[in-house]
Amino acid sequence: MTTTAPTDSAARFELAHMAHAELYTPDLEGSLWFFTQLLGMRETGRQQGSVYLRCYEDPYHHSLKLTERDQPGLGNIGWRTTSADALERRAAALDAAGLGLGWTQGDLGVGRTFAFQSPDGHPMELVWDVEKYRAPVELQSRILTRRSKRPLQGLPPRRLDHVNLMASDVTVQKELFEQTLGFGTRERVVDGAGGGTEIGAWMSVNVLGHEMAIMRDQTGSKGRLHHLAFWYGVPQHNSDAAELCREYGIQIEAGPDVHGITQGAFLYVFEPGGNRIELFGNSGILQFEPDHETVTWDLSDFDTGLAIGGGTLPAETYFVYGTPGTDGQDKLLDGWKDRDLV
Amino acid sequence: MTTTAPTDSAARFELAHMAHAELYTPDLEGSLWFFTQLLGMRETGRQQGSVYLRCYEDPYHHSLKLTERDQPGLGNIGWRTTSADALERRAAALDAAGLGLGWTQGDLGVGRTFAFQSPDGHPMELVWDVEKYRAPVELQSRILTRRSKRPLQGLPPRRLDHVNLMASDVTVQKELFEQTLGFGTRERVVDGAGGGTEIGAWMSVNVLGHEMAIMRDQTGSKGRLHHLAFWYGVPQHNSDAAELCREYGIQIEAGPDVHGITQGAFLYVFEPGGNRIELFGNSGILQFEPDHETVTWDLSDFDTGLAIGGGTLPAETYFVYGTPGTDGQDKLLDGWKDRDLV
Amino acid sequence: MTTTAPTDSAARFELAHMAHAELYTPDLEGSLWFFTQLLGMRETGRQQGSVYLRCYEDPYHHSLKLTERDQPGLGNIGWRTTSADALERRAAALDAAGLGLGWTQGDLGVGRTFAFQSPDGHPMELVWDVEKYRAPVELQSRILTRRSKRPLQGLPPRRLDHVNLMASDVTVQKELFEQTLGFGTRERVVDGAGGGTEIGAWMSVNVLGHEMAIMRDQTGSKGRLHHLAFWYGVPQHNSDAAELCREYGIQIEAGPDVHGITQGAFLYVFEPGGNRIELFGNSGILQFEPDHETVTWDLSDFDTGLAIGGGTLPAETYFVYGTPGTDGQDKLLDGWKDRDLV
Amino acid sequence: MTTTAPTDSAARFELAHMAHAELYTPDLEGSLWFFTQLLGMRETGRQQGSVYLRCYEDPYHHSLKLTERDQPGLGNIGWRTTSADALERRAAALDAAGLGLGWTQGDLGVGRTFAFQSPDGHPMELVWDVEKYRAPVELQSRILTRRSKRPLQGLPPRRLDHVNLMASDVTVQKELFEQTLGFGTRERVVDGAGGGTEIGAWMSVNVLGHEMAIMRDQTGSKGRLHHLAFWYGVPQHNSDAAELCREYGIQIEAGPDVHGITQGAFLYVFEPGGNRIELFGNSGILQFEPDHETVTWDLSDFDTGLAIGGGTLPAETYFVYGTPGTDGQDKLLDGWKDRDLV
Repeated sequence: MTTTAPTDSAARFELAHMAHAELYTPDLEGSLWFFTQLLGMRETGRQQGSVYLRCYEDPYHHSLKLTERDQPGLGNIGWRTTSADALERRAAALDAAGLGLGWTQGDLGVGRTFAFQSPDGHPMELVWDVEKYRAPVELQSRILTRRSKRPLQGLPPRRLDHVNLMASDVTVQKELFEQTLGFGTRERVVDGAGGGTEIGAWMSVNVLGHEMAIMRDQTGSKGRLHHLAFWYGVPQHNSDAAELCREYGIQIEAGPDVHGITQGAFLYVFEPGGNRIELFGNSGILQFEPDHETVTWDLSDFDTGLAIGGGTLPAETYFVYGTPGTDGQDKLLDGWKDRDLV
Repeated sequence: MTTTAPTDSAARFELAHMAHAELYTPDLEGSLWFFTQLLGMRETGRQQGSVYLRCYEDPYHHSLKLTERDQPGLGNIGWRTTSADALERRAAALDAAGLGLGWTQGDLGVGRTFAFQSPDGHPMELVWDVEKYRAPVELQSRILTRRSKRPLQGLPPRRLDHVNLMASDVTVQKELFEQTLGFGTRERVVDGAGGGTEIGAWMSVNVLGHEMAIMRDQTGSKGRLHHLAFWYGVPQHNSDAAELCREYGIQIEAGPDVHGITQGAFLYVFEPGGNRIELFGNSGILQFEPDHETVTWDLSDFDTGLAIGGGTLPAETYFVYGTPGTDGQDKLLDGWKDRDLV
Repeated sequence: MTTTAPTDSAARFELAHMAHAELYTPDLEGSLWFFTQLLGMRETGRQQGSVYLRCYEDPYHHSLKLTERDQPGLGNIGWRTTSADALERRAAALDAAGLGLGWTQGDLGVGRTFAFQSPDGHPMELVWDVEKYRAPVELQSRILTRRSKRPLQGLPPRRLDHVNLMASDVTVQKELFEQTLGFGTRERVVDGAGGGTEIGAWMSVNVLGHEMAIMRDQTGSKGRLHHLAFWYGVPQHNSDAAELCREYGIQIEAGPDVHGITQGAFLYVFEPGGNRIELFGNSGILQFEPDHETVTWDLSDFDTGLAIGGGTLPAETYFVYGTPGTDGQDKLLDGWKDRDLV
Repeated sequence: MTTTAPTDSAARFELAHMAHAELYTPDLEGSLWFFTQLLGMRETGRQQGSVYLRCYEDPYHHSLKLTERDQPGLGNIGWRTTSADALERRAAALDAAGLGLGWTQGDLGVGRTFAFQSPDGHPMELVWDVEKYRAPVELQSRILTRRSKRPLQGLPPRRLDHVNLMASDVTVQKELFEQTLGFGTRERVVDGAGGGTEIGAWMSVNVLGHEMAIMRDQTGSKGRLHHLAFWYGVPQHNSDAAELCREYGIQIEAGPDVHGITQGAFLYVFEPGGNRIELFGNSGILQFEPDHETVTWDLSDFDTGLAIGGGTLPAETYFVYGTPGTDGQDKLLDGWKDRDLV
C-alpha cells in the first residue's frame, strides 16, 4: 500500500499551505457582490482592474484576487513554502520536472514568486515573501489570533481553505505534487471496473484532510477549475449560507451535506461569474499520522464517499462542469441568471 | 384568500396536539433496534405482541406503539382534546360527518377514546384521559420540565412531532379536518397546470407549522402513511442522525436539509420495518397569528418549497412510496436489507 | 397541585401572542446601531421621534418601537387577542380588575387598543386590529412563510419572542395574568426557606414555554423591565451573537448557555441604551398538554434551573439590574461605554 | 517579537502529534463509566490493572490508558515523531538537556519508547513504533478515514486532542519544548504588572492552535495535570455533553463557551477520578503560517482570552485545582460525589 508522505522524501515539509488564489470572472460586479456582500470578505486593494479580498482570519494581504476576463476560471494558486531555502529547492525541483515558468516580481502584498504550471497546465506559484495583514485600529479584534474583526456584513467565512482541480490524468498530476512538492495523498478514488484508473485524489501538505483535490475531467479538457473553497468551520454556517444563497438568487448545486471522502461539510454554489465555490462547514478529518496510508475508495462503493446524508451530487453538473466552460456548458447555469441582488 | 383558523368556528381550540401513534411493522425486532438502539427511545410496556415506547420528553405513557403485522403502515393516530367536554363535542361532530367508529376502552396508558377514520380511511382516535408519565427515581431529570433523563443510548429525539398522510384527495381530507376538528391549514401546494388541484396541505391545531400533513398519493391508493416524525429541535442532530444511519445501515432517503414549506429541517429514513421516519431538526416556522392566511405554493415554484439547500427529494420514492406498499414498492428498499446492526 | 390552564376559565384561548413592544432609550443612536447593524432588524417607520423596527419573520408592521427618553425601560407590551370579541371581553375583565386604562387610537401599523397596566404598573395593551407586514418586491422571500428576506446585515433574529418583568410581588402579578388574561404558568421558583414565597414565574398563552416571565425585584422597585427577548431558534446563533457582541463592544452579561427553567438557550447582553436584551437560541420546552401542571423549582435546587452548563448568572447584575435603573445602577455598565461601533 | 517556529531549528518537523496519554484514577470504575458510558470510548485492552481506551477516530491501539492509583494525575504523555530517525535525534537532544530517562519496552500497542520528563517532572515519552488500530469487521465504518464506527453509546468524542500542564515555571517549561522538541508557541499570557512573567503558553508541533498548554501553578506545586482534552469538533456537541453531565451528575466546572486564547470551544468537567477533562467543540484557530509570531496577551486584557461569551472560569478552581491535588483540594469536588450513574 502506498505511503503518502514518504519519510525520506526531500520534498517533505517544504510547503506550508495555500496562501492565495486568483479567479477570473466575466462579471466582476456580480462576483464582487457575492464575495463582499454575501460572504462578507473585505477589499484590501485594487490594481489594473483586479480586486484583492480577504476573509477576516486570512493571515496575509489577500487570499483572493478577482480579475475580469471573458471566461471564468483559475488565474493562479499560490503555495507558501516553509522557509526561504525551501522555495529555492522547490523551484529547482520544478525546473528539473520541466514545469517551471520562472521567477516573478510578485503582486500586491506578495513578494518574488516562482511561477509554474501543473502537468495539466493549471497556473501556480511558490512564494516565501508575503505581506502579513495588519488591521487598522477600527478593524482590530479583541481576539488576538484573529487578524481582523468578524464582519457584520453577510455570512463571512474565516479563511481560504482548499482548491479542487479537474485534470485530464489524475495520476500524473498527483505524482508530480507528491514527488516534487511533498504533498501527501490522503484519499483517492479508483475505478475498479476501469482497470484501476484513478479518478480522484485528495492531497495535503499539512494535517488538513486536503488542501488540493484532483478530479478527472470527464470532458477531457485540461487545466480547468472544479472549485475553490472557503472555510466556516461551523456546520450550522453551511445551512445559513444555503438559506442566504436561496434568498438572494445564488445557484446552489449541492449540499449542505458531508462528504465521506475527507469528511468535509460541503455546500457548492456558483458565484455570479460562473466559478463553483465550496463553503466548508467543518474541518473535515485531520490527519496527524506521519506515516498515514492512502485510503482508497472504489467507484462501486462511492455513494458514502460522495455524501454521508442523502445529499447527492448532480451528475449533470458536478462531474462535468468546470471553469472555463466547454462549449455549451454555460447553459447549465442559465436558469439562475436573474438573481436577486439587494 | 382562505383564513385558516376561522375565528367563529365551534371546532376552534378543541384539539390540543397529537398524543400517540401506532405503527405496523413486519420486522418487529428490526424496528425495535432502530427506535431503541439508534433513536434511544425507552420501552414502557408490552402487551399482546405490541411494544410501547416513548421519547425522553414525551409527556404521556407512550408516544409510539409498535405492532407486528405482515405489512408496515399506520395503526393509529391519537389526538388529545383540550378538555373532556371538547372530546364529547368532537365525537358528535365526527359522527355527524359519518366518520365516527365509536368509543373504545383505550389502551395501555390511554383511557376511553373515540375512534374514527379520515375520509381516506386513516385510523385515528380522540382522547382526553391519558396517563401522564412519571419517571422512576433513577430516570428523573434535574431539568424539571423533562419527564425523564436524556438517554445515553443512541441519538434520542425529544418527542413525537407530526404525521404525514398520503391521500387520494387532499382537499376532501383537509376540509374535514378544518371543519370538524378545528385544524388550521398553514400552507398548501396547488398544481396550477392541473386546474388548481391541491396536492399537499400542512395543518395544525396549535402554533406548530404542522402536526399533520396531507400529500396526494400518486398511486391512487387510500389511507397510506407517508411518514411519522420525531423532534430533535437542534439542526446538528439531524446531521448526527444521518451519520449514524449511514454507519449502521439504515437507508437515508433525503436530507439533512430544510424544507421551504414549514421551514422544517428534515432527514428522511426508512426504519427496518419499511415505514418512512422523519427526524426533525428545528421547530420549523411557528405560526402565532390567530388570523393567519394559508400560504399557497404553486407547483411551478415548488423547488424552494421542497428544499432550501441543494437537497432534492427523490421522485422515484418520495412522491410514491408509502406504507403499506403497493405491488412492487417493497423492492425500492431492497438494496439496504443488509444493514449492520451492532 | 396547580393546573396552569384551567379548562373551565373564560379567559382561556383569548390571547394569541405578544405582538409588539416599546423600549425607552437614552441613546437612540446607539440603540439603533445595535438593533439594525448588529441584529439586522429593518426600520419600517419613524414618527414623533420614535423608530419602528421588525425582525424578518415578524408578522406585523413592527415588533419593536424605540423611543428616546432620559431613562431606559419598558414603554409598552402589546398582546394580540384571538378574535375581535375576545378583545372586548378581556378589556371588560381588566376594567373589572381595576387595571384598565381605556381605549387608544393605536399607533403606526396598530389599530384601536385597550391600554392597561400590570398590578406592578408595567404598561401594556391588548389589540386585535394590526397591519400585517407586506414586503416590497425586493424584500420578498422565496420562502413563502417568511415575511421578508433574511437580511445580509448583522446576525438577524427571526422574531420578537418574550418579555421578562421584574415585580415587587410575583404572586399578585402572576394571578392577575392567569385569571384575567388566561395565561398558563408553566414553571415557578419558590423560596422554601422564605416560607414559600414565589420569586419567579414563567407564563404563556400558547405552547411556548414562556412569553412572559415575572421575577422578584430584589430592590423593591415596581414596574421595571428585566429583559426583552428575540428569537434565533438555532443554538449556534447564540454563540455567533456572543462573538459579535465581544468584537463590537456590546456588554455580555451571561451565556450562551441553556436555562433549566424553560430549557431556553440564553445570551444576555445590554443594548447601548442600557436595556437588557436576551437572544434566544432554541425554542425552549414546548408545552402541548392542555392540563399541564405548573412545575415548581425550589430555590435550594436552583442551580440547574439557572444554567444546565457551567454558565452562571452574575448575582451582582442578573437579580438586581433592571430598567429604569435605581440609584447607582447605571454604574454597573460603566466599563463598557467605549464600545467599538463600526 | 519571537518567531515561534524558527526556520533553522534542527528540532522543527521532528514531532508529529500527541499519540496517547495515561491518567491515574482513585476510582477506576467511576472513571471507566465516564469514559465508556458517557463519552462512548471503546476498550481495546486490559493489562496489569490498567484499561486501554480509544475514541472512534483515534488512529492507534489506544489513546487513553487508565490506571488505578491512590491519587488522580498524569501517568504519561506519548508524542509520536515524524520518523524513526527523528526519534533517535530527539532522544539524544533530551539526554543532552538532562531530561532523558532512557528507553522502554513500550506498552500494549506501543513499541520501544524514549522516556523523559518535563523540566517540572511531567512524565512523557517519544515513540515511533505504534500499532495502527484495525477495526474488527463489525466495527468497520463505511467512512473509510474513520478507523471505527461512531458508537451508539453516549456522546462520543472523535479523538484525543491536547494536554494542559500546570508548571511551577512556565518559561522554563516552554523553552525546553521549543528548543529540544520543536514546538511552536502560538500564544502566551504575560503578567505585565508582575514584570512580564509568563503565566501561560499554548504550543503545537502542527497546525493545531495547541497540543500542549502550560499554565502557572499558583500553588507552587510541580508536575501536575490541569486537563486532558478530547475533540468533538462540533460546537453543538459541547452543549449536548454539558446536558448529559448535568443529567448524570458529572461536575461541570465551566462552559460551554469559547476561549479567546486558541479560539477553542471548551467544556470543563471533572471525571469521577478527579481529573479535569476538557471537551473540545471546534478546531480552534488553525495556524498555517510557517513564520507565525507568538501572540501575547496581557493579564490586564485577559477576559476575552478566557471566554468570548459570558462564561467565566471560576477562580477558586480553574487556576488552582490540578491533579494530584494539594492538601485540601479534594474538597473542592465534594458536592458532586453523589453522581447519578445509570
